[in-house]
This record gives sequence, structure tokens and C-alpha cells, in this order.
Amino acid sequence: MRPRGEENVRPNPLRSKAVLSDPAGADVPVGRRSFLRLGAVLTGGLALGGNSAIAEPSQESPPADAPWSQSIGAGVVDRPYGRPADTEASVIRRNVPWLTATAESSVSFSPLQDLHGIITPNGLFFERHHAGRPDIDPAQHKLLIHGLVERPLLLTMKDILRFPQTTRIHFIECPANGGMNWRAAQMNSLQFSHGMVSCAEWTGVKLSTLLEETGIKKEAKWAMVEGADGAHMNRSLPLDKCLDDCLVVYAQNGEALRPEQGYPLRLVVPGWEGNVNIKWLRRIKLGEKPWHSREETSKYTDLMPDGTSRGFTWLMDAKSVVTFPCPEKPLDGAGLYEIRGLAWTGNGKVTRVDVSVDGGINWQTARLHEPVLSKALTKFTLPWRWDGRPALVASRVVDESGYVQPTIAELRKQRGSNSVYHNNSIQTWQVKSDGTVFNVQLA
Amino acid sequence: MRPRGEENVRPNPLRSKAVLSDPAGADVPVGRRSFLRLGAVLTGGLALGGNSAIAEPSQESPPADAPWSQSIGAGVVDRPYGRPADTEASVIRRNVPWLTATAESSVSFSPLQDLHGIITPNGLFFERHHAGRPDIDPAQHKLLIHGLVERPLLLTMKDILRFPQTTRIHFIECPANGGMNWRAAQMNSLQFSHGMVSCAEWTGVKLSTLLEETGIKKEAKWAMVEGADGAHMNRSLPLDKCLDDCLVVYAQNGEALRPEQGYPLRLVVPGWEGNVNIKWLRRIKLGEKPWHSREETSKYTDLMPDGTSRGFTWLMDAKSVVTFPCPEKPLDGAGLYEIRGLAWTGNGKVTRVDVSVDGGINWQTARLHEPVLSKALTKFTLPWRWDGRPALVASRVVDESGYVQPTIAELRKQRGSNSVYHNNSIQTWQVKSDGTVFNVQLA
Repeated sequence: MRPRGEENVRPNPLRSKAVLSDPAGADVPVGRRSFLRLGAVLTGGLALGGNSAIAEPSQESPPADAPWSQSIGAGVVDRPYGRPADTEASVIRRNVPWLTATAESSVSFSPLQDLHGIITPNGLFFERHHAGRPDIDPAQHKLLIHGLVERPLLLTMKDILRFPQTTRIHFIECPANGGMNWRAAQMNSLQFSHGMVSCAEWTGVKLSTLLEETGIKKEAKWAMVEGADGAHMNRSLPLDKCLDDCLVVYAQNGEALRPEQGYPLRLVVPGWEGNVNIKWLRRIKLGEKPWHSREETSKYTDLMPDGTSRGFTWLMDAKSVVTFPCPEKPLDGAGLYEIRGLAWTGNGKVTRVDVSVDGGINWQTARLHEPVLSKALTKFTLPWRWDGRPALVASRVVDESGYVQPTIAELRKQRGSNSVYHNNSIQTWQVKSDGTVFNVQLA
Repeated sequence: MRPRGEENVRPNPLRSKAVLSDPAGADVPVGRRSFLRLGAVLTGGLALGGNSAIAEPSQESPPADAPWSQSIGAGVVDRPYGRPADTEASVIRRNVPWLTATAESSVSFSPLQDLHGIITPNGLFFERHHAGRPDIDPAQHKLLIHGLVERPLLLTMKDILRFPQTTRIHFIECPANGGMNWRAAQMNSLQFSHGMVSCAEWTGVKLSTLLEETGIKKEAKWAMVEGADGAHMNRSLPLDKCLDDCLVVYAQNGEALRPEQGYPLRLVVPGWEGNVNIKWLRRIKLGEKPWHSREETSKYTDLMPDGTSRGFTWLMDAKSVVTFPCPEKPLDGAGLYEIRGLAWTGNGKVTRVDVSVDGGINWQTARLHEPVLSKALTKFTLPWRWDGRPALVASRVVDESGYVQPTIAELRKQRGSNSVYHNNSIQTWQVKSDGTVFNVQLA
């Protein structure tokens, strides 16, 4: 059974020449009303044909039955724990083999080009390991809190689950996200240029609750936080941040943390660089001074033009990126599109995102999608009528502190080019006439 | 290397007798301040021992190195698409084999007892199939919109991805959730009493956008929405609801819909019963009257005491449930706990949740956790000092329409006992002295 009338093709309203000839031009925002008016334009019987044509179906016939509509499918709990469709097999985390010496001390990038919304599913959350992913027995795992405290504590997972719970949605970003762009080793890819940021709903205990339980000695000013991985990955954190908004979490998007995200316990340090969000958390020690550990001296510092290094650059400043179009998702002919993207800031909430299609000469304000949460990914969209000519698509975020996302030239003026971390500059995608999209850096 | 001083046990502050002897008693809310003061009480050197004791670690020693802290773990992209830890293998969807004739026309229940927060991870979202889970090729899938429209449309997935996107977090609940309790066939389980509700971040196109694109004829008052599964599962929806807040979605928690959730396309009808949220959506037909399809006559109606049936009872009224403690998560001795739970309503936002530990005689207002979103799960918590005596733990939600969650007796007064759907009554958990928890119905 096929729908009657498939021979009467009519143009896809999304790609009609009627739109292209609109005098408003390519740079003018296209509201939902004009998007919808489009349909009415086409009732005149324009027949533009080509690969943009869609069938005009019958008013009465049901759709043709595909094989899957003529059979019984799999039963419930066929997969007691589900997995994506086989046809989504290309939506995976990927690494860059030449970027690091071994996969055990490396990163994988989240496929932002295939994701929608602000939640990153747990299977696709980016990874950063310093000594690989340990497989920990949660029944044996303990968290030690000691140092400048009144009463040191050694807590089991069962103990930690008893404390009052807090649930919050926060992004985590590696400060090396964008590092290949910074070093002019950029790949033509959204996944590899920006895929070291992800966002999840975290549940656990406020770190302040645990620290107050131990009693904080008044000399204490810093905390050393340490993982149970083979690297004993550790960092120093100011006590003020620990008491402000840090969480010791055991759940991510509802379920237990994934092993590569720190199962059974990790620290979440909202808005601060990924490496301080210690995974496989086993120890918190309070002290008077920072520890100057390996990961805050040989790594995670920024060599400045004068030969000094910036250290303790924890804050992730405001950043945004257009996720559609992007190198992995080119345009398919001129017509109406929606530019889509993500913005985030360690300073709190995103307040505005502007989008340019001419490389930053003109900007239009995008729509922010609710909920706009503090230190979480925020989704933005802007309708765009592409005229088929070359374009330079970019986004620029402003956050509630007033901070404006800088150009790469502005960052280089401050920092020179020796550093690699904290490239939060404006990303520009070059769209060519054939719709292909390239990662370019504007001077 | 083991922490020094493990022989010096001190009581777990969460379970101390110092708390139990507090004159405030079991029903009094315990704020964070008194929870924390507890630590101070214990510095006097109480040594209550027993299985509630935790080790007092050294102020200086690092924790003992477990095997996983002395080795290199797996590299990144060892699992390009991740999965839970092997030690979480019990956290799965489950079905009740005796409940339905076949697994292809059945339900699976989400393990709410192991979940935290408001997002249900995609692998654990409850399932309801009418003819099993079809495996659909998204390249061949189309959505037909026809009937009382000006211009019928047959849209491919590629077409649908071009339309303006909307992302929202909403719960979906099967109206049979709680049906076993209603029929006095309850199981002693949170998973089976309430596990047919889940919540996700959905991304797609507003149904109103697609319908306005086709042009709605003025006689149109209803929409028939139909799936591509072997059951051709279909329901009638009032056009007003379609134009209000329905979404045609292709993504769930960021990634493509899972096959059992309607891949590649489903309808989300916020706040209305699960079965109208048509999965594998292939057709929307506008008409003047409802279709009175099989699934809205032989099923999904409520037989009343007078022999008539209520039909089109789409709205999911306000409901809540305590997720800890619950039959699967008993209490481990007297002491301080946090009662945790979920509340939701098809009417919009949850405004208040009250909790009782004495079977509904006294109520205390729980804390609602942000974000409180419309037609989404809302998390609530309340500290509870359990004295070790039998208790009856229950929650009661109030929503922004003023609706108050009823008792089962109040529902039976209206409906008798023939129906099975829409049991949103207050759930009571009986806690026995040994901490075990039972599913009971209070008269």
C-alpha cells in the first residue's frame, strides 16, 4: 500500500526559491512567523523539483506499511539496560591518537555535532584520564577527610549515601578544550575543537556538609583533593571554594557515576577546570597552603610571554560554540536553517549570546532556551536564511558577570602563544558555497 | 600501607545514640544545623561500637592503596559508547511476567530505588510496548500529516531536523502505574509500584509548528496520532492540546531517542498519560471528531461503579512517592536519615510536598530541589531522625492548580474498584522495627 498522489511533487518549503528571493536577504533574522508564512507562499503551485522535492501525499490514505509496521518487535526487557539504535553507531566518543603518548593518559571528545539539549548522555560524556580508568569495588572504596580538621573521618559509600543529598546540573570542561585550535593544529571538526565539555545532573553531598562534620580548624585555608587512580591525581583547592558550591557526587543523570567519570565517587567543582573535579575521590586533606602538586606545576599552568607561568587558573571563562552548522554537519543547499549552539560560563549564568554570519561584522541576538542554569550548558538558536554564498558563522556569549567572550587575537595579546589551556575564544565556521563547513581562525 | 589508628573506632555520627536520646523525638524536622552539631556531640569520646562504628583515621597518613590505585587502568575510548560499572548490574528495568500475556505487549519498570535526581538515564527509562519494539531505519522513516489540512506533508527525518528546535524536560507516566496497588495485587517494591514513570530532556519540533506548516482547516478539532509499530498504535488528541505544548521529538537526554522510546521519532504530550505520547510516530491526521480507536475504547478507559466508562482521561494528576526508604532500600538501624522522593503533576509545577512518618496524622513540608520545572519530576527531601519504632512513611503533593494528592479511599469513593488506571493516591511505606519496609494500603 503506497500513498496515492506521490507523483504530484511539491517543493520542500524549507528550501524553496521563494525564500531565497526574499528581499530581506541573508543576514536578517527570520522569525517563526515568516518561517510559517512560507507554506502559504507555496500553495500557488510552484514546482521547483530537484532533490529538494517532497511528495504531496493524499488527504486520505494512511502511509505505506514498512516491514517494521507489519511485524511484532522485541519484547520489554529485551535489553534490561538499554543502548542506542544500531543506526546511531557513529555517535561515539573519539580520541586523537597523535595527541598523547598513550590512551591511558589521554582524552576522548564528546560528539557535540550529534547532541541536542543541555544534558550529555552518560555514554558520551568526554573522558580525561591520567592513569587510565580504574575499576573500583564500591564496597571497599572509602573517602578520608583529614589534615587540619577536628575529627578526621573515613567514610564508606554507605556512610556517604546517608548524608543530605543535593542535585544540580553543571558542565565540566577540560581547560585543554580548544588547545589544538590555540596551537594552530586545529582539526576540521566540532567534536575535536570543542568536545571536551559535557554537562550532567549530579547528585551527592555538599562538600561543605562533610567538612563541617569533621570540624574545620581555623588555620585551614586549602584542601588537597586526591583520586584513587594509579596517578593519585591531586589538586589544591581554596577552602572558600570547597565551602561555596562543591559537591561530592555518586550519581550522574540519575544513575551511579560511570567508571570513566569517577565511579563510585567524584568531586564536582562547578565552573572550574575539569582536572580539579577529581574522579575516584579518596582523600581530602585540609592545610594552610597549596600543595603545588605535579598537576599544578608541570601541568595546568600557562606559560606567559615574559617567561613566568600563570598558576591556579581554575575558572572556566564564558565560551560558546555553534554546533549547527559545523564541519561534521554541512548545509544542504540554500534555504531556511536554524543556527544552533551551546554557551556556558564558570561565572554563573549565561545572559546573552550573539551570532554573526559575516565573521563578526554584524551580530544578532540568539534565543536562549530554558532552563538557563548557573554553571550549566545553555542552548541557543537563531533562524537563518542562507543565500548560498560563503559565510562566516560565529557566536559570542556574555555572562552575568558582564564578561564577553573574546576573539583569539584578544587572548593572544594577553598571553602570547606559549600556553595551551583556557582557549575560550570565539569559534568561526567558514561555510562555502557548496555548504561544506571549515574550522578557520580569524586574525 | 594502612591508615594508622584504625583500632580507635568512634561512632558513626549518623547513627549515634546521642541522636536517639534527643528529646525532640522522631517527628520533628531535623535541620542541617542540628545534623552538623552531631559531630560536636561525639567529640566527648562516646564509643558505641557495633556495626555502626567507623574508623578514626590518622591526621597525617594517606589512605591505604587499593589494587586499583597501584596500576594503570583502561585507556580512553576503551568504551567509545560507555556503560555502567559491572557492580551496578542489578540496576535494570524489570517486568512482571504474570502481568501480561506476552513481553511484546507489556511494560518494564524503571528502578526508582536506585535513581537520584530528576533525569532518568536513557538505559533505564520505563518501556510500554503494544506490539514490541520495532527496529526502524531512520533513512526510510517518514511522518505524514494529512486530513483536514490545506497542504498535506510527508516529511523525512532530514526535513524534520531542519525545523526550529525546542528542548524541554518532561516526565512520562503510564496511567497503569500503580495499577497493581489499585487492584490489591501490590508487590513489595518501589520499582513495581511506581516504576512506570520516567523523566527526560526531549528535543524536537513543536507540533504546532508542523501543523501550521500544513495549514489547519477551520473544521479541524481533533488529531489522530499513529505509530509505525506493528500495532499501528493510535490515539485521538484534541487539536487545542496539539497546538499548546506537544513536541515531535527525535532526541532524549541529548542523543537520538532509544529504539524502545520511539526511535527515530515520537510524540511528547506533556502531562498526559503515556500511551498518547505515540512512539515511532508516522502519522498525524486532523479531523472533526475523535476516532474512538481500539486503544481508547477497549483500553485506557475507566469502568465506573454505575457501569459507564470514563474515556479520554488523559491528564496525569499530581502524584508523589517516597523513594527512600522503600522496600528495596530498608533502614540500617535507628538514627538520622533523609527521606527522599519524587513528585510530579500534569497540571504544571509542583508547589509543595508534605511528608508524614505516622501514616498521615501529622505532616511536615519537605524541601523541593531546584529546578522545579513544569510537567517534570521534582525532587524532595526531608531529614528524619528515626527512633527505631515502627513508622508509616508517606508523601502528599500539592500542585500549582491547587490539586492535592488524594488517599486511595478518596479515589475509591469516586471510582469504585473496577478501574485500573490513574491511581495517583498517596503511597504509604510501613517501616518495621528491624528497618524493613513494606508496601501497605491504609483504609
